[in-house]
Amino acid sequence: MAKHKVAVVMGSDSDLSKLEKTVETLRGLGIPFSIDVISAHRTPKAAHAFATGAERKGIKVIIAAAGGAAHLAGVMASLTTVPVIGVPILTSSLGGLDSLLSTVQMPGGVPVATVGIGSGGAVNAAVLAAEILATSDAALRRKLAALRNKLARSVARSSKKVKKEVGV
Amino acid sequence: MAKHKVAVVMGSDSDLSKLEKTVETLRGLGIPFSIDVISAHRTPKAAHAFATGAERKGIKVIIAAAGGAAHLAGVMASLTTVPVIGVPILTSSLGGLDSLLSTVQMPGGVPVATVGIGSGGAVNAAVLAAEILATSDAALRRKLAALRNKLARSVARSSKKVKKEVGV
Amino acid sequence: MAKHKVAVVMGSDSDLSKLEKTVETLRGLGIPFSIDVISAHRTPKAAHAFATGAERKGIKVIIAAAGGAAHLAGVMASLTTVPVIGVPILTSSLGGLDSLLSTVQMPGGVPVATVGIGSGGAVNAAVLAAEILATSDAALRRKLAALRNKLARSVARSSKKVKKEVGV
Amino acid sequence: MAKHKVAVVMGSDSDLSKLEKTVETLRGLGIPFSIDVISAHRTPKAAHAFATGAERKGIKVIIAAAGGAAHLAGVMASLTTVPVIGVPILTSSLGGLDSLLSTVQMPGGVPVATVGIGSGGAVNAAVLAAEILATSDAALRRKLAALRNKLARSVARSSKKVKKEVGV
Amino acid sequence: MAKHKVAVVMGSDSDLSKLEKTVETLRGLGIPFSIDVISAHRTPKAAHAFATGAERKGIKVIIAAAGGAAHLAGVMASLTTVPVIGVPILTSSLGGLDSLLSTVQMPGGVPVATVGIGSGGAVNAAVLAAEILATSDAALRRKLAALRNKLARSVARSSKKVKKEVGV
Amino acid sequence: MAKHKVAVVMGSDSDLSKLEKTVETLRGLGIPFSIDVISAHRTPKAAHAFATGAERKGIKVIIAAAGGAAHLAGVMASLTTVPVIGVPILTSSLGGLDSLLSTVQMPGGVPVATVGIGSGGAVNAAVLAAEILATSDAALRRKLAALRNKLARSVARSSKKVKKEVGV
Amino acid sequence: MAKHKVAVVMGSDSDLSKLEKTVETLRGLGIPFSIDVISAHRTPKAAHAFATGAERKGIKVIIAAAGGAAHLAGVMASLTTVPVIGVPILTSSLGGLDSLLSTVQMPGGVPVATVGIGSGGAVNAAVLAAEILATSDAALRRKLAALRNKLARSVARSSKKVKKEVGV
Amino acid sequence: MAKHKVAVVMGSDSDLSKLEKTVETLRGLGIPFSIDVISAHRTPKAAHAFATGAERKGIKVIIAAAGGAAHLAGVMASLTTVPVIGVPILTSSLGGLDSLLSTVQMPGGVPVATVGIGSGGAVNAAVLAAEILATSDAALRRKLAALRNKLARSVARSSKKVKKEVGV
Repeated sequence: MAKHKVAVVMGSDSDLSKLEKTVETLRGLGIPFSIDVISAHRTPKAAHAFATGAERKGIKVIIAAAGGAAHLAGVMASLTTVPVIGVPILTSSLGGLDSLLSTVQMPGGVPVATVGIGSGGAVNAAVLAAEILATSDAALRRKLAALRNKLARSVARSSKKVKKEVGV
Repeated sequence: MAKHKVAVVMGSDSDLSKLEKTVETLRGLGIPFSIDVISAHRTPKAAHAFATGAERKGIKVIIAAAGGAAHLAGVMASLTTVPVIGVPILTSSLGGLDSLLSTVQMPGGVPVATVGIGSGGAVNAAVLAAEILATSDAALRRKLAALRNKLARSVARSSKKVKKEVGV
Repeated sequence: MAKHKVAVVMGSDSDLSKLEKTVETLRGLGIPFSIDVISAHRTPKAAHAFATGAERKGIKVIIAAAGGAAHLAGVMASLTTVPVIGVPILTSSLGGLDSLLSTVQMPGGVPVATVGIGSGGAVNAAVLAAEILATSDAALRRKLAALRNKLARSVARSSKKVKKEVGV
Repeated sequence: MAKHKVAVVMGSDSDLSKLEKTVETLRGLGIPFSIDVISAHRTPKAAHAFATGAERKGIKVIIAAAGGAAHLAGVMASLTTVPVIGVPILTSSLGGLDSLLSTVQMPGGVPVATVGIGSGGAVNAAVLAAEILATSDAALRRKLAALRNKLARSVARSSKKVKKEVGV
Repeated sequence: MAKHKVAVVMGSDSDLSKLEKTVETLRGLGIPFSIDVISAHRTPKAAHAFATGAERKGIKVIIAAAGGAAHLAGVMASLTTVPVIGVPILTSSLGGLDSLLSTVQMPGGVPVATVGIGSGGAVNAAVLAAEILATSDAALRRKLAALRNKLARSVARSSKKVKKEVGV
Repeated sequence: MAKHKVAVVMGSDSDLSKLEKTVETLRGLGIPFSIDVISAHRTPKAAHAFATGAERKGIKVIIAAAGGAAHLAGVMASLTTVPVIGVPILTSSLGGLDSLLSTVQMPGGVPVATVGIGSGGAVNAAVLAAEILATSDAALRRKLAALRNKLARSVARSSKKVKKEVGV
Repeated sequence: MAKHKVAVVMGSDSDLSKLEKTVETLRGLGIPFSIDVISAHRTPKAAHAFATGAERKGIKVIIAAAGGAAHLAGVMASLTTVPVIGVPILTSSLGGLDSLLSTVQMPGGVPVATVGIGSGGAVNAAVLAAEILATSDAALRRKLAALRNKLARSVARSSKKVKKEVGV
Repeated sequence: MAKHKVAVVMGSDSDLSKLEKTVETLRGLGIPFSIDVISAHRTPKAAHAFATGAERKGIKVIIAAAGGAAHLAGVMASLTTVPVIGVPILTSSLGGLDSLLSTVQMPGGVPVATVGIGSGGAVNAAVLAAEILATSDAALRRKLAALRNKLARSVARSSKKVKKEVGV
């Protein structure tokens, strides 16, 4: 069985398309994870059960994605001391500002580690989960370093492409 | 024992000063109420117990006030079909915009009846609770009508005062 | 004739498409309702007549939807003590922030029970109206509980679907 | 009796301190005006009576100041074709953004001539009223031109003062 | 030659599509108007010449539309005491909030009568211009009253249509 | 020597007063930490050296606090795979919205675990750091559970106090 | 070899389409420039090397474009005293407000010369770079004056076109 | 006589207190400057004269500070190709967001080099002016490098002070 474990929860199945990069990044890093649709508001008991049981099940990091009055990450965080990463989902009305503020502005004592709105945030939820696990997993830290190098090389390639396109 | 019942809950005792008008207005209308400090994030089990038990205790309306990532009203609403009125508390950083969006932007199926930020909202939480109770209480509706008349007379007096001050 | 009564008013016929979920949800709950286009600004006299006559006609809850400088709910609320639910319509310029603030920031004494911008708000206006009526209608409260259960089951089904899609 | 007439209305007597510059500027320009406290929400009938009677009383311009869900100017505008100038009052929560959006975002057909939040807006409501009256009053236009010259001279004096203070 | 005169100026020819309703409404009311593209920033001298010459040419109201750092209305207002109506053009980045604030937040002494962002504002610029001209033109005031009646009848028709569509 | 290690960095010594709760909470949990003033903009080389050396020095979590165009957390995150917690400092102009957006909206691959603006965020930076360390430290997890219990008891005491003050 | 030199850097190759006008304007003015993709976060060492080497390579102005938590311009500015122009890239979530605030709100001592969000900003980055170079290059100043004249003539042509279209 | 020349203009003498750091920083760098109060709106002709005459007088950079609908920098920029630095003054209503957007969102062809709201912006206007002048003045570039070193040393001192205060 896997030594580390990440749980990905989302407030609605429509959020899945926005979390594709989370799934892909976790897989790329070889991190085993579970995935669940749990709504803080429509399935509060499931949310309660999930959060209170997380530590016992060996979950080390929870990634919770929700939009609007995005309480999912906060509800998780209120019921466990396992680190909770909040992903504010983009909303069509307020551009995700509502999701962001609902996720990040937590009262003292109950943190949510919030990442950005949109696809950058979806990648970063996975990378941050990995960075947290890597605090006690040197092999994973090496994988993260390799991912950074890959990112850097990709930027270098972009630079060449752009120079060619512009012709300078 | 009282026929109707309103429950006032707030996320922190520091919110009490911001809810003075709620208390005063409920008393002025003769509506019996309970008051509790319950934090969605710091006492999630108390919040859960309170919301799930509200209907059984004969509570007809819940008024929930919180600031920042203000989940208290939403947590209550997720666990009961008793109407929940949300009061967004003014925050020093974002002027209560965070509290407002966290309270009002609820997903379909789990409404929070949101009132304004600040002292107008504190009064209105009580008046709205009374209006809800008055849907089946003609005497209370008459009291609400009387309150409106009092408000109107107070505006009329203000008008005289202002005319005198300006001298027109 | 129906025992409860909800009045749905909207500021423009273009808002109807945004209130489909309100209509559908009220029907699903078996709540009789009327529907009218009334503009606070273009038909102020109709708005005045409607609001002052609402209580006499047995209307127990008014749902008022408008966008921009969204005064419809406030105008209704100023002329009756029947609870008024405000639905801020999404605007193309400011994402409905104008509609939300114009609806929710009411002065003390004249509340508008505001729900969220967009389709969640449209559903919630109907559910909140039902919750208000259910304060004196046990059968309706049971229907609301059933609706919540249906929502929860739908989330559980989504969860299975997502697990299958992601393959975990 | 006065040939032109301006009506100043405000939503609350607490707004008077914020309209001092309006009063002072109208007086400085020799424009007769009335002043009233009328609340769109707390005295809707007075608002209705005032607006519908304005034209008959010879009122040429209405200045309406309100804060929060600031409907006063819009209510006036909905009931008369006399030009209505809206003054958004500064609010402690959202800095008057709520007042501004509630005042300016009117639907097509019912304009409110909106000026800025705060003391600049208070002066400008009076100057704009004068500019409107001056479209058929050459003497008033000359007074406005004189006021502009006075403003320009005051800036020139400020410039000398600043040069001296800085020592350049 | 025409007794009244409205000048419509816009910052860019791309704004014309957004001012169609202004043109149509002015024509509908039989108000003669001129139209010009003048940029506060790209043709500052033309802006200066236009504003300083407006009164002499018998222009009674200037309608100025611009987006972004929308200075056109303010520049006009700084150079004439003819009333200037500002139309904030919708921007793709900030939804016209930049245009609105740049237009409305004028310093004391130099007002811009600001209308809403978007198509409502385009209509309202024309209606407000007409209301201003009507302060000394009873025939135009009657046309404005007729326009209001037409608006009200259109809302009444919409109401019938909506009732039929919803089937209540 | 300490087994875990947290590094607290701030952009300016004026931020120290805003991080008192961070220091206090880390000490309360018995977590050894270092503290440094490092400015992403004024001491970029020190920032570079600090971030690239952090892992080697055994630092497990970096807490970075900055205001305005708050790049400190992002600069740290760009140079290490040690988890970086960003604390957006409240600004007098925009209420910390600038600090929040500059900290949280990171591009994919380089996460900053962002907490809230203000004193809640200062506490939560420390608690989140502890939660991260506790993923491999059972004793620390027990301390965190105890802290949660203490918070819950403090809310319960507040509730009694509020009931007494209100007299219900 | 060229006497002046502008360096254009962008955070991602997807920004190139948003900088087309920058490239075109620089070419139109005959200003030699380099172009590079450098990410403050994904290639921090390249960013560091580029900025510290800029002056030596004879670069006189750096144009840096980035979106979201847009640190690129700030990172450049922190490592050189060559003037840095920041271009906030439009973001799909918050309309570029995040990019703007991350770019402009720099601490005292390390300025970024920020231009607007979107295509206006892309042009202006090039024009501002030219204005800076023109402080010591009279020929370039003449080209800038010619560009302004061209802009003014284009507005005049637009004005004729609009008059024709509207038929006034 | 001075070789370089900076012109500082502000919209109101009340802005002087907010530009103290600009004055102090220019003096510290030995850059000769003029200072004037010129209002885009109250003294448009002075603004016009100043901007059109700037280049002839040998002015190399204009620093223009204004608040609200802050047009001063834009008006200057529209009338000269001398680089214009815009300083958005903090406003009591909207925290300077109005000033910032009015200053930065300029149309293509007429840039304003915008710095931040508040005291950081005041310093940076001066430093940016110096960086622009230093593109052709090696001695000034050395002074700027020295200023950066001084800033870095001051941060290092702060770091020691903070370590001592916290006792780590």
